[in-house]
Amino acid sequence: MLSLPVRRLHGPGPSPVAPSVLQAMALPCIGHMDPEFMRVMNEVREMLQQVFQTENAMTLACSGTGSAGAEMLMDNLIEPGDSCLVGVNGVFGGRLAEKAKRAGATVHTMEAQWGQVFDQDAILEKIEELEPTVVAFVHAETSTGAHQPFDRLANAVHAYGGMLVMDCVTSLSGVPVLIDQWGIDAAYSGTQKCLSCPPGLSPVTLSDRAMHKVNHRKTAVNSWYLDLTLVGNYWSGSRAYHHTAPVNMNFALHEALRLTLQEGLENRFARHQRVHQLLKQGLLERGFTYASDPEHSLPMLNLVNIPSKVADEAAARRQLLSEFNLEIGGGLGKLAGKCWRIGLMGHGATQESVEAILTAIDGVVSDTQ
Amino acid sequence: MLSLPVRRLHGPGPSPVAPSVLQAMALPCIGHMDPEFMRVMNEVREMLQQVFQTENAMTLACSGTGSAGAEMLMDNLIEPGDSCLVGVNGVFGGRLAEKAKRAGATVHTMEAQWGQVFDQDAILEKIEELEPTVVAFVHAETSTGAHQPFDRLANAVHAYGGMLVMDCVTSLSGVPVLIDQWGIDAAYSGTQKCLSCPPGLSPVTLSDRAMHKVNHRKTAVNSWYLDLTLVGNYWSGSRAYHHTAPVNMNFALHEALRLTLQEGLENRFARHQRVHQLLKQGLLERGFTYASDPEHSLPMLNLVNIPSKVADEAAARRQLLSEFNLEIGGGLGKLAGKCWRIGLMGHGATQESVEAILTAIDGVVSDTQ
Repeated sequence: MLSLPVRRLHGPGPSPVAPSVLQAMALPCIGHMDPEFMRVMNEVREMLQQVFQTENAMTLACSGTGSAGAEMLMDNLIEPGDSCLVGVNGVFGGRLAEKAKRAGATVHTMEAQWGQVFDQDAILEKIEELEPTVVAFVHAETSTGAHQPFDRLANAVHAYGGMLVMDCVTSLSGVPVLIDQWGIDAAYSGTQKCLSCPPGLSPVTLSDRAMHKVNHRKTAVNSWYLDLTLVGNYWSGSRAYHHTAPVNMNFALHEALRLTLQEGLENRFARHQRVHQLLKQGLLERGFTYASDPEHSLPMLNLVNIPSKVADEAAARRQLLSEFNLEIGGGLGKLAGKCWRIGLMGHGATQESVEAILTAIDGVVSDTQ
Repeated sequence: MLSLPVRRLHGPGPSPVAPSVLQAMALPCIGHMDPEFMRVMNEVREMLQQVFQTENAMTLACSGTGSAGAEMLMDNLIEPGDSCLVGVNGVFGGRLAEKAKRAGATVHTMEAQWGQVFDQDAILEKIEELEPTVVAFVHAETSTGAHQPFDRLANAVHAYGGMLVMDCVTSLSGVPVLIDQWGIDAAYSGTQKCLSCPPGLSPVTLSDRAMHKVNHRKTAVNSWYLDLTLVGNYWSGSRAYHHTAPVNMNFALHEALRLTLQEGLENRFARHQRVHQLLKQGLLERGFTYASDPEHSLPMLNLVNIPSKVADEAAARRQLLSEFNLEIGGGLGKLAGKCWRIGLMGHGATQESVEAILTAIDGVVSDTQ
């Protein structure tokens, strides 16, 4: 049988998984149309609504990873010829733009320096200029740790009938994600970040406004697998068979959501902040500098410049992995070779983790001096 | 925490999962770019090649359920304007046709009665007449139990440069699936049938011919998530990050494949046949009749007519579930309310299962007399 090392997961995800989540995932499989599985789906939906802070009926776990959730929203909300405004300040904004294009949109991008966020006034200006059908920004840019404010955009988008879409893959349950309060029409996340469930599902939520657009499309959705009129009927309503849901992954998500809500969202946000400050202090004391905008940085993903005394950053990360079983993330895209990404997400956002990370860094970075 | 009944899974899938597969799935998560996970992916690929009986380099576990695998092949192999011939003798053939259409194909269908297979000579005639870019048939129609012969089609398709695609969701590792010997260009399966792994991944394999077509497309693939030039680079070659693979699902599939190969494919096929005969005998003795073509029926999926003494078939199935924890499948599509589908797949294909199924049926069907 498989024999694997036990890692400390402090990259950009997957994050450490609580033992009870692994236990839930290993419960004996049941049928995807079993009334007991319907109950699990209902409870997953209700808990996701709480975590997303929304009353959206169309809230579910898409049967793929975060990228599938992104594609589900782009494919369902965009028809050929629609326009889409996408903010690109990292890898995941770029991917949203690509997905919008493949869904048939004329894509307009706004660019910001990687690690920086967009000024909401500048976004509003662009929205009013272009009146794009879909406006999509990344709340938590996993490639840079940038934390995009989202609270002042909805009115302008709704004024002409547009849809506001948010990537909250890395932020959900780590910092406030206020779907209803911010007027977000559609958002997607991943299970393997602050929810601390293994990767394999993508929580998504869509407003009634968004579903009205989906239900009144003139063209078929590109994807049958991700077609929300079909997937939505399986998750609620007629319960019509569509695909076979990843049953055991939903067991795991159920338990991860239960743990999240048991802790309480506010407590969870505070814990992520507290532990982030501890790590930041330790890193600054060791001469590290942050590469992201200090005013708009995510607590759960720390983007730091690689110290000049580290000659071979990939070798240093390999050493962290092999000697300390510590995974941290390298830079992605433009930041490859320049930055490290250190994650403190969900079950892994603890003081003990911070100490282990700093000890390992001391061991490896001093070695390379 | 979740409390769930332990079911006997004898519907059309998911099938019963071996304890060691559940244990593997519950191993602590590791990173999706960890060298140890790359090893797991390599081993999954090598074992899938053995199970598919192929040397195809492009063999991997698509990060979605069987329907995602089907869509991956249709989306990658079809460009707008291509023609596609699809055999429709059940729900899953119909879905293939729909996916081909959404991928941009002009779709031609051949129809056969549900429960029957297509005569290969008739298919060959149609192939020669239409010369479709993609020819897609279902090897094991999960909605009817029909077992489609596939051994004489490839030459005609290859003669003019077409691609032969096979749905082997329910057949893989339960009856021979000879990808290379039959000249199949692309095939997809599911984990939750005869491989007896929970649902969540779709094994796919593509020949070099098929990948040549994918790599020389003139248009972008509809789907970014399922784009094989990107997914393929993550599974081999440059190992470029694409999406976060469902790590623990791949642990489970690794163990399920290990168990499959430890038993040996020929032994596994023989076991499915042997156990099928036992069930068939028991059902015939009880007055059941089969609704599928006896010459072309799958051993792992038994399509039977609902006995006339069963007044309310859905109530009978609910009773099987609540009193005996036995899941069997209702009819799907045209066969809803007319047939039952009784599965004996993978880990669940045992004499003990047959006895439990017959005992439960005796309890419930006699009750309704």
